[in-house]
Formats: sequence, C-alpha cells, structure tokens
Amino acid sequence: MGTKGKVIKCKAAIAWEANKPLCIEEVEVAPPKAHEVRIQIIATALCHSDAHILHPKFTKALFPVILGHEGAGIVESVGPGVTNCKPGDKVIPLYMPQCKKCKFCLSPLTNFCAKLSQFKDPIIQQEVMEDKTSRFTCKGKPVYHFLGTSTFSQYTVVSDTNLAKIDDDANLERVCLLGCGFSTGYGAAINTAKVTPGSTCAIFGLGGVGLSALIGCKVAGASRIIAVDINSEKFAKAKALGATDCLNPRDLQKPVQEVIIDMTGGGVDFALDCAGGSEAMKAALDCTTVGWGSCTLIGVAIGDKGLTVSPIEILMGRTINGTLFGGQCCHFFLLIFSILVLKLLQ
Amino acid sequence: MGTKGKVIKCKAAIAWEANKPLCIEEVEVAPPKAHEVRIQIIATALCHSDAHILHPKFTKALFPVILGHEGAGIVESVGPGVTNCKPGDKVIPLYMPQCKKCKFCLSPLTNFCAKLSQFKDPIIQQEVMEDKTSRFTCKGKPVYHFLGTSTFSQYTVVSDTNLAKIDDDANLERVCLLGCGFSTGYGAAINTAKVTPGSTCAIFGLGGVGLSALIGCKVAGASRIIAVDINSEKFAKAKALGATDCLNPRDLQKPVQEVIIDMTGGGVDFALDCAGGSEAMKAALDCTTVGWGSCTLIGVAIGDKGLTVSPIEILMGRTINGTLFGGQCCHFFLLIFSILVLKLLQ
Ligand SMILES: NC(=O)c1ccc[n+]([C@@H]2O[C@H](COP(=O)([O-])OP(=O)(O)OC[C@H]3O[C@@H](n4cnc5c(N)ncnc54)[C@H](O)[C@@H]3O)[C@@H](O)[C@H]2O)c1
Ligand SMILES: NC(=O)c1ccc[n+]([C@@H]2O[C@H](COP(=O)([O-])OP(=O)(O)OC[C@H]3O[C@@H](n4cnc5c(N)ncnc54)[C@H](O)[C@@H]3O)[C@@H](O)[C@H]2O)c1
Ligand SMILES: [Zn+2]
Ligand SMILES: [Zn+2]
Ligand SMILES: [Zn+2]
Ligand SMILES: [Zn+2]
Repeated sequence: MGTKGKVIKCKAAIAWEANKPLCIEEVEVAPPKAHEVRIQIIATALCHSDAHILHPKFTKALFPVILGHEGAGIVESVGPGVTNCKPGDKVIPLYMPQCKKCKFCLSPLTNFCAKLSQFKDPIIQQEVMEDKTSRFTCKGKPVYHFLGTSTFSQYTVVSDTNLAKIDDDANLERVCLLGCGFSTGYGAAINTAKVTPGSTCAIFGLGGVGLSALIGCKVAGASRIIAVDINSEKFAKAKALGATDCLNPRDLQKPVQEVIIDMTGGGVDFALDCAGGSEAMKAALDCTTVGWGSCTLIGVAIGDKGLTVSPIEILMGRTINGTLFGGQCCHFFLLIFSILVLKLLQ
Repeated sequence: MGTKGKVIKCKAAIAWEANKPLCIEEVEVAPPKAHEVRIQIIATALCHSDAHILHPKFTKALFPVILGHEGAGIVESVGPGVTNCKPGDKVIPLYMPQCKKCKFCLSPLTNFCAKLSQFKDPIIQQEVMEDKTSRFTCKGKPVYHFLGTSTFSQYTVVSDTNLAKIDDDANLERVCLLGCGFSTGYGAAINTAKVTPGSTCAIFGLGGVGLSALIGCKVAGASRIIAVDINSEKFAKAKALGATDCLNPRDLQKPVQEVIIDMTGGGVDFALDCAGGSEAMKAALDCTTVGWGSCTLIGVAIGDKGLTVSPIEILMGRTINGTLFGGQCCHFFLLIFSILVLKLLQ
C-alpha cells in the first residue's frame, strides 16, 4: 500500500527509563532488511514479563525500549529472502526464534533455539536485530527492540525466524494471547509437566499464564485442580475454567503447601508455579507428593533469592522442570492449537 | 540349626555416639516376630550414608545403633506369616520397604513405599521394628536398628517387606553391593536420568554410587562420560569402567562446570551428582545443556546449605530429579539385574 521500502511513522509506547510509565510517542519504523518482516500490529496484550523490565532491581535493561511480546498483526512488507510469509498474511510475532537449523531446533525435545544462546539472560535478549542495529527511532534517537517482537507499536520489525503465520480467519484480538501467555501456560501443562488424566494439580498464580495452565490441566484430564492466588478476585474466572478448589494463602492459618497436602492426602501430582518468586516456587515444590510429584516452574520474579532445594526433597522422587514459552516446538504447536484456543476463548 | 526361636549371641559393630569409632561388641539378637526374618549376614559393605549418622551436625541420630545397609546373607529363621523366603535362602536386606499394598508400591512410577512416610527424614527412619521395639540388646540395653537393615551384625532381624530373595548361586561378597551402592547408582542412570544412547554424561563423585552410575551410563549407551572427583585416585577405576574423561576440580583453573561446558560445546545431556553437597550439586546442574539438560541428585551431605536454583536455569529447559535407591521398583529390578551385575563385578 505504498509504504513498502519506506520509513513508517506511527505511534508506539516507549519506556524511557525504569520504574516510570510508558509514553505514547511518534516513532519511525525502518523498512525490513534481509530476512526481516514489518508487521502492522492490530492487537497486543500485556504479559508480566514486560513489567519486569521496568522493575528498579532489574539492572540489565536497556533504554529507551519498545516493550510488548504478546501481539498479532498483518504483514506490511517483507525484506529480501523471506519465504514464510507475504504482505497481507496474519501473523503472530514470537520471542522464541526458530532458525530450523541449530541442534535445538532440530531436536523434538525443546523449543529453544541457538540464536538465544548468544544472550546470557533471555529477558533482555534480542534488543537489536541480527545486524546489531535497531529499526526504531524516536526524536532522532535509536530505540531498542524487546524480545525481538516490540508489539507496543503500531508497526514493528521482526526476524523471519520470530513469527508464525496464522489462519486468515483468526480474530487477532483473541489470538494475540498465543504470543506468550496462552502458549506458555497451556504448553507448560501439556508439554512440560505432561499432566496425566485423573491427576491432581495445583496452580500458583492466576494471571494470563496461570489461567492458561489451568485450561491445559483441564484439557489433559486432571480430575482435581487447586487454583492458588493472593488475589481472590481471580477465583471466579479460575472456577469458570475448571478449578475445583481455590485458595488464597493470605486467608489461611498455615502455609498453603500444608493445606494442599492435607486436602489431597499427601500432595498433588503436578504443581505449576505461574506466579514467580521464592514463596510461590517453594510452595509449589513442597505441595507435590513424594514418589512422583512434578513441579513445573514458569514464573520469574526480579530481585528474588531463587528456590532453595534440599536434596532429600528431590531424592524422595520429586522432579523440577520448567519452560520458556510452553516448551517443545512452539511454532508447530501454535498452528495446531490456534483453532482450539479460538473456541475456548470466544 | 537349633537357633530358631532362641536369642542369638553374636558380634556386631555398635555406634555408641556421634563422631566416635564403632565398637565391636557382643549383642543379643531376639527371634523374629510375625512378618520378620532373622538373617545371618555373610558380607556387608560400607555406604557413605552410614557415615552420615555419625556426623556431629546430624542431630536426628538415635544411639546406640547398629548401622549398615549394604549386606547379603542367609535366612536363619522366619517369624509367623512370612511367605517370601525360608530358612537357608540367600537374601539381600533392603532399606526401601515394599509393602505391595500402598499407592506407591502399586504405582510403576516409584520405588517409594508408604511405610516410609511415617518418618520425616528417610536417613533416620526404621530405627525400630513395626511393633516399636528393637530386636537388639547390648550390655542389657536396647540398641536401635538402622534403615530397617542393620547389616553391621553377624545376625540381624528385618521386616519381610525389607528383603529380596536372590539366586542360590549368588556370591554374597559381591552382591551385597546391590543392597545400596550399585542399585542406587545404576538405577539413577537407567530409571531416573533415563540416559539415552549416544548421549554425553557427567558424574560427580566416584565412590560406590558414582562408579555404579558410570556402569549405568555405559550400559545405556552414552558416548561420552566425564567422571569428576576431588580425589584423583578414583580415576583409574573410572576409566576401567568406561569414563572417557576424568576431571579433578582442585586441579582446574576455573569452575569444573565451565570446563565441562567448554569440553562439550554447551554442556552435557545428563549430569548425576553422586558426591553430595552444594558445590557438587550446583556444578552438576550448571554443566547441563540448555534445552534438555537433566540433573539427577543422588548424594546427600550433612549440615549442607542445599542447592539454590534460579528459575531461569530451569526455564531454559533443564530438569532436576533424584532418586532413593535407584528409583522405580527396586525389588523387581534387583532380581532381574543381579545376574548382569554378577558378570560385571566378577
Ligand atoms: N516462562 C515463560 O516463558 C514465561 C512466559 C510468560 C510469563 N512468565 C512469567 O510468568 C509469571 C506470570 O505471568 P502473568 O503475565 O500471568 O502475570 P500476572 O501478573 O498477570 O499474574 C500473576 C498472578 O500471580 C499472583 N501471585 C503473586 N504472588 C503470588 C503468590 N506468592 N502466590 C500465589 N499467587 C501469587 C498475582 O496475584 C497474579 O494474579 C510472571 O512471573 C511472568 O514473568 C514466564
Ligand atoms: N540417594 C540414595 O539412595 C543414596 C544411596 C546411597 C548413597 N547416597 C549418597 O550418595 C553419596 C555417595 O555415596 P558413596 O557411598 O558412593 O560415597 P563415597 O564417599 O564412597 O564417594 C563419594 C565420592 O565423592 C567425592 N567427592 C566429594 N566431594 C566432591 C566434589 N565436590 N566434587 C566431586 N567429587 C566429590 C569423594 O572424593 C568420593 O570419591 C553420599 O552422599 C551418600 O550419602 C545416596
Ligand atoms: Zn510473556
Ligand atoms: Zn535454532
Ligand atoms: Zn547407602
Ligand atoms: Zn508400600
């Protein structure tokens, strides 16, 4: 539509510094280079990981930056060499790249890609394109990308390894959740925890990730799902999605893990931490049964002291695993499940 | 042979208090009660877990006690109701009971038994028989059992849930290792880590458990096995059993996990901690690859601060699991593998 090859001026939400509100500004979005795609973002949601970047204790953030990684849009133009999408296609930008060549991409065991290994900490990675430059400027200054997606902009540029083409009929305002929260939570239950039919599950944290994990546990056939949040307002939605019990740790006389152990006669089969932070991680591990209890970590908290494990807890048969973006091959997963999800969310 | 139903006087090694050498004393061993078996111990080995009880920082030990849980012997007599062995049978006492009725025994997922759940810490459990009394006295005083086995005695009494009948041809001086070290290490590699053909493994600690884990990795078809110990004298045996590389962390310029990551181009597929303690556990976790690295905990250290995990290490696709006595159903496992092991050890 006449914009191909040209700089596009549009609005974006800029984070100028930590611990400050985002500012809506006019930005310039350069055309895509080789193996890059410029996308008109139609819808974007907010994941807690966006907020982590603004946390005063998160010292590795680069500013100014355009956050956002849970979006959906329409391809505006593509750079040379792009073969997996064309202008007009509906797409979801993905913060987990898939080069399809590295040993990780070629393995069925993981959705990780070696492109991420260049970066020590995945929260701050992909803040520039592969040529080490940004496609965004604002007030004459370059602005960093975030997670290779930067969906808090009317237009963004992503690598062709960081997107999935989706169905033409997809409702972009719904499926943007596939860009992080839904895939992460649902995938954690199905791919990482591998929740089994008839099992008992506990989910800590009922945000976008936790509610999606709940859907995953339900679809996997869990017979009991205990939903835990320190905010009781989350319980109505959790019950509507299939939670059999809801617990607010702040309302209990003893630690939530002890209450869950009592309720289940020894602990759950699967616990999923979708809250983040030592307290929730520890409760999730402790509330699993000896013998085969599985604790899946998904949440992260900034400035946290981590999870301290006594070997004996693990020797008794417990497993700790975790997932970024839902584990295993997320792109394939996205294509298959987008229809299912559309039904569940609409 | 005339001892059935009578008290037997014999020698045993008594631990009178923490941090002191064991004393060889004359003890009285009462006849077995219902569902108990009195065994003449022919051979016993020493596992590091016996030593833990004597550690000055291990506050939960009960004294006096007869330690030992890696033995083999011959049934001297059985109490009423015993059907799984008879006088004259060769047996291995097992510290992991198998009641065959509880949800754990009935599950293929674990070798754990609910009989253990009565005790908070498995190291000190089973210090009396099911009727809450001991079968041992020394100098007129009752002496505690240890782990339901107490093999540091010429005669011991165990529950019929705590033994495995073995082949009449078994060499008891060899197969006593099946009572802990071999089953634990081999089982950790095969049942818990589930080491895969062609994989790269790292083993921390080359005692009885670590060398057995090494045999497990080799039998599972690992193509590279990096053996780590702070005592280089362990390396000759490790190489003879199939280690491809041996590392002494004390001889290295940088942390052993970094050396292993460099050697393997990103980390091993499987790491097994058979040493115990924060340092070895942390090195084992850190040296696994992102994507699918598996860290199996087996070792325990007394007075240790445990393993502190940052969620991001786990989110990148790593798993932590662990095992008591080699995981899954140990009794079945023992019967099947005793022939294999006899070949390997002789
Ligand atoms: N691993 C991944 O790939 C991945 C992807 C997305 C998000 N995340 C992380 O997952 C977490 C959840 O993300 P979200 O967008 O759903 O966040 P959110 O803020 O929408 O939801 C978090 C919920 O957890 C609750 N909570 C906080 N502390 C709790 C505690 N101690 N016990 C129980 N509940 C508690 C909050 O009340 C809230 O309802 C965040 O830490 C985020 O960074 C990880
Ligand atoms: N999980 C179980 O069921 C189970 C069963 C048996 C033993 N264990 C535990 O396994 C561990 C090993 O038992 P074992 O009988 O083989 O002990 P061991 O003392 O014979 O061998 C331990 C080895 O680890 C080495 N080591 C110590 N610190 C190390 C470090 N930081 N890095 C590398 N090597 C180190 C020692 O030099 C020694 O060779 C002990 O902690 C024991 O309590 C657990
Ligand atoms: Zn997210
Ligand atoms: Zn890749
Ligand atoms: Zn042992
Ligand atoms: Zn049982």
